[in-house]
This record gives sequence, structure tokens and C-alpha cells, in this order.
Amino acid sequence: MCGGIGSRFWPYSRTDLPKQFIDFLGTGRTLLQMSYDRVLEFIRPENIIVVTNERYAALVAEQLPELGPAQILCEPARRNTAPCIAWAAYHIAALDPEASMVVTPSDHLITREQLFINSLLAGFEFVESNDALLTLGITPTRPETGYGYIQVGEEVTPGINKVKTFTEKPDVELARVFLASGEFFWNSGIFLWRADAIIKALRATMPDLARTFDNAASIMGTPAEEAFIAEKFPACAAISIDFGVMEKADNVYVERVSFGWNDLGTWSALYENSPRNRDANVAHNCNVITYNSTGNILAIRDTEKLVVVDGIHDYIIADAGDVLLICPKANEQRIKQIVNDVRSSHGEKYL
Amino acid sequence: MCGGIGSRFWPYSRTDLPKQFIDFLGTGRTLLQMSYDRVLEFIRPENIIVVTNERYAALVAEQLPELGPAQILCEPARRNTAPCIAWAAYHIAALDPEASMVVTPSDHLITREQLFINSLLAGFEFVESNDALLTLGITPTRPETGYGYIQVGEEVTPGINKVKTFTEKPDVELARVFLASGEFFWNSGIFLWRADAIIKALRATMPDLARTFDNAASIMGTPAEEAFIAEKFPACAAISIDFGVMEKADNVYVERVSFGWNDLGTWSALYENSPRNRDANVAHNCNVITYNSTGNILAIRDTEKLVVVDGIHDYIIADAGDVLLICPKANEQRIKQIVNDVRSSHGEKYL
Repeated sequence: MCGGIGSRFWPYSRTDLPKQFIDFLGTGRTLLQMSYDRVLEFIRPENIIVVTNERYAALVAEQLPELGPAQILCEPARRNTAPCIAWAAYHIAALDPEASMVVTPSDHLITREQLFINSLLAGFEFVESNDALLTLGITPTRPETGYGYIQVGEEVTPGINKVKTFTEKPDVELARVFLASGEFFWNSGIFLWRADAIIKALRATMPDLARTFDNAASIMGTPAEEAFIAEKFPACAAISIDFGVMEKADNVYVERVSFGWNDLGTWSALYENSPRNRDANVAHNCNVITYNSTGNILAIRDTEKLVVVDGIHDYIIADAGDVLLICPKANEQRIKQIVNDVRSSHGEKYL
Repeated sequence: MCGGIGSRFWPYSRTDLPKQFIDFLGTGRTLLQMSYDRVLEFIRPENIIVVTNERYAALVAEQLPELGPAQILCEPARRNTAPCIAWAAYHIAALDPEASMVVTPSDHLITREQLFINSLLAGFEFVESNDALLTLGITPTRPETGYGYIQVGEEVTPGINKVKTFTEKPDVELARVFLASGEFFWNSGIFLWRADAIIKALRATMPDLARTFDNAASIMGTPAEEAFIAEKFPACAAISIDFGVMEKADNVYVERVSFGWNDLGTWSALYENSPRNRDANVAHNCNVITYNSTGNILAIRDTEKLVVVDGIHDYIIADAGDVLLICPKANEQRIKQIVNDVRSSHGEKYL
């Protein structure tokens, strides 16, 4: 899944070049490329499918030249994850009715790749021998308030439990309780299932969405698919797979995993997961000279740009060439408001 | 005089485009152009001569297309004001032995143009009828510690006094005493004299410099002048006209003037002389959106750039495209050190 616009990282992430298409960690590979590299370890390249917004099709093709055109599914509109995943599942089922699949965001950080691979192989083994919807639950390492949690029920096989409940993001008190209990895991948004299992679950939980795709099952993977999507996809309700399916289906399981995961959903998360210099400043893609400045995160699109900072502590400094943002890390939730203000005053120009 | 590099305003002012060549006040005219416009009110255009460094000759010609090539004197090296003024004086004397001249920096702000014109006309009248070196002393309006002061002696004609002493920049206590006394005026660096009077003073106070030009008096204004300057100018000692002549000559006078003058020598001076918005932020050449931010000065080369600032008070934010500086206004004297540090780590690239 590669269609997000990364607005929480504005202006470093922009609608014309969202987060997943940026070399966010300065490794030489974008987050999308890193996600591709990771799954390539256990999925044949011709079986990797990227679902993105049509405006990003060229970016995907440029960043992943290994993909053939049929491996890029272009959404004509943003409709959250349920329609995205439904399309992918029906598309895959048409190619191979026996297929199992992993659904993964393309903009997350995973640091321990071999553990990730081992977890996914174990997960595939489970969903291929059970009618199960499997989600990956990350063993929490801190009372994080930025993630949803999954409470586990009975263990059905080593490392895999029945899901008891999905929870909203907790406050810090509750997050501490979750952490101490050992029963709560972070909801990673990574799913495994057989294509026919998620289709069956969609028919039960989101019948309108399933009907749309059932009516077109025979044209999936044919030249007629594009026209069908152009006509019907924008009419699908924008609902997340969590809300639409996972919280309603009764065959939902969670694999408890630990592979150094972060959704890189916030500047603070990026800061925490980046190498810091001795003054605890994090500099992405730029030459920085600091004086009496600590705890800042600097993200500069122009890798040649020199940034000199004096007397600044715990700020986000993000420069996208035509936009500069200077904002306390503690105020990053304000970025959403800022983006709205910028839209009000300047339209889409700077978004 | 138009050869400075404006390093105190780095990075907004750069060696390839110093302060005087920038539309510093957002008026649509650069400081050089504003200086030209001002003297054009009482000096015939063919009598205006710009002395600059040879690296800026093309910039001068571009910004002042009215000037003929013979009106731009190009210094092959930076040698402070005494050699610059000596060259101009000998050059002018060769064109017209009777000429009087005004010497003015090209990067100052003057807000009350008619008062400036009237002051200069009165000054010309004085120097044309007296063997006098006249400097303009600005009536101080605050205990400024950033300027040198001139103490006046007896008044010799209305508005013009003998100079008693030139002083260094005072501390704030002394500046308050100066202001209260009524005897001290800001040293503007604007001078009026007959060309033959400054040449006579140069012979008395800076005989080496005068000898260099006396030996070439016959080729001034001829095609041989350029080769002479290329050979001899770099060998002149780099000395200011204040130290070399004004503090030593005995025919030095000061005209007491008030025409809304500021040398724009510091970010703080620029801040004080710029229109502020309701949060007391000053934005030069940029779209700015501020949240909880006051007292900042923002100077952005790219006039289309959007700058969003949250939680910043009393800072300089200067963006030159390839360099971004964020620095407390109170630390602006550190910019000199910063420039040195940047030179140490990156050479001339960002200067």
C-alpha cells in the first residue's frame, strides 16, 4: 500500500512527493524501496503488487523499475484501506485462487529484517492452514500513546493468539497499564491471509464493497479491469480495513512479533529512530552546523544545503525548497492545522 | 562606494550578491539603486561615479544601466576606503580640476530625501568656498553603541562646526552621556570636499598613497589608467579614510544633519528600520505564517518561498537558497564567527 500523502510530515513530505517516496532515513533507498527490498526476501518479484494513487504511478515505476506495469494498481481516488485491500485481494484471487497474501504499508521502519522474515513465514504457514485473518501485533517497548493496541486472547499456536479486542489510541496512564499487562500489542497494520479468506470476510462485514468486486470478478486481471476501477472505485466508501473488517470478523488472530518496528507516523517517531549527534540533534540529508542547540530534527530536501542553527532546542526544522517550517517538536500535532491554514491562504501551491 | 561584501548579513548577503545589490527593504529598488536615485536629484547623471570591486562590475552595470563604462571604477583588490577615495579624487580632478565631490556609501538607508538634498547643497556651498574636509554628522536620536561619534567644536557657519574629536564606538553608558551632551553626532561616512582639497590632505597625511597617484596624475581618465590601477592599487595599504585622513587633518568640519539615516549595518538595525506586523515580526521578501512568534526578522531570497514559524521569538531567520541561518538577534555578533567556521569546514562555497 503506497497511496498516502504523508501530511503529518509536511513540508518535508508533500503531495507531489509523499513520505514513502523519500529517502527518509538517508540510507540511499526510499521507504518504498526499503519495503520492496524487505519482502523480496521471501516473495517472488513477479508476485509483488503495489497499490497506489494514480498520481504516484510514475513515481512507483521510477523507484521500482523491476515492476511490470501489471504490478502497479492505480487507485483513481483515495478511499482508505478497505477498498484498496479488497481490490488487491480480488485481483490476486483472479490470478491465483489459492493465493495467500501479506498486506503491508510502504512507509514503516523495520530494523530487524531477519526477524520480520521469520515472522511472516510463520504467519503464512498459519493462514495457509486455517481460515484466519492474521494481523501482526508488535510487542510494545514503551507506553506509546500514538498507536492502537490489540488485546490478545488465548494462544492457538505458539506465537499466535485469538484477538480479544482492538483499542483506540490510549492516554499515557492507560498505555502504562497496557504495557505492564503483557496482554496488549501494537497494531502494526500488517496483515496476512488467504485471498479467499479476506474475500469471504468482506462479504460478511462489508457486503456493499464485496458486491462491487464480486460483480467484476470475471474481469479482474483482464484489460477491462481498468475501466471498471475508474468507474466503481471512487464510489466505494472510504473505510479502513480495521474498522470495516478486523473489528467485526470472528476469525481474527494476532501474531506476536518483535522486529524493531516503527510506523514513522510522527516527527517525534522519526527523531527517536534516527542517529543523533552528540548534541542530540538529528539531521536528515543536510549539512548542519549547530551552536547551543539540542534535540532538534532537521529535514532538508536539498542535500547540499547548509543549515546553521544557534540557540534552538527541540524543534522541527523542515525545508522543502519552497517551504520552510520551524516548529517545536512538542507542537507537531499543530502541523495539521498549519496545513489547513496554508490551504486557506494559498490553495494547494505549498501542499 | 559599492565594493563591500556585507558579511554581517550573511547568508542573506553573500560574496556573490552583497547587501548593496539586494532589494533589502522590499521597495523594488536595491540599496545601490536607491543611493543612485537619491544623488541624481542634485548631481548630473554623467557626473556620478561608482567605485566597486571588479567582481561586481557586471552587477553595477546591470543595476544602473544609465552609467557609461567610464563611470564604473573597478578596484582589483579590497583596500578599505582611503585608496578608493584617493583614486576617485584623482580621477575626478583629472576630469575637472575645479570639481567638488560627495563620497557616499551605497548601502545606507536615508528616509527623508529632501532634507538629505538640502544638507548636501549646503555642504557643497561650504566646501566650494573653503579649503575644508566636510563630514556629515547625524544628530543622534538614541544612545546607539554601534556607531562612531564626532564631537563638535565651534560653529563656523550655521549648521557646520569644526570637528573636535572622532570617537570609537562607545559603551551604552558613554553613549547616553554623548546623547545628553548635544555635542556628539553619529559619523555617517558621508563626505564632501573639493577634489583638490582631499588630494592636498592626502599628500599631508598619507604621503605614500598620494605619491602613487601623483605619479600617475597625467594618465588619469586615459586608457592607461586601467593598467596603472591593476598594477599599483593592490599595493596600497588598506586604511580607512577616517583613520588615514580625517583624524589627522586640521581642516576637518562637520555638518550637523537630520535626515532619517541608518547605516543598516546590523540585523538589529534592519529590524528597527523595517515595517513590523502586529506580532512585531519583520518579513523581507517572503510569505510568512507565524504562530506564537514575535520580534523575528525573516529575510528570504526566494520571494515565493513560504515560511511557517511557530514558537520563535527574537530570532534572525535568513534563507539564501543554499544556506539557512537561524540565530537569536541578540547573538548577531556571532555571525562573524559562524562565517569563519563555515569557511573552515566548507571553504568559500557557502560564503
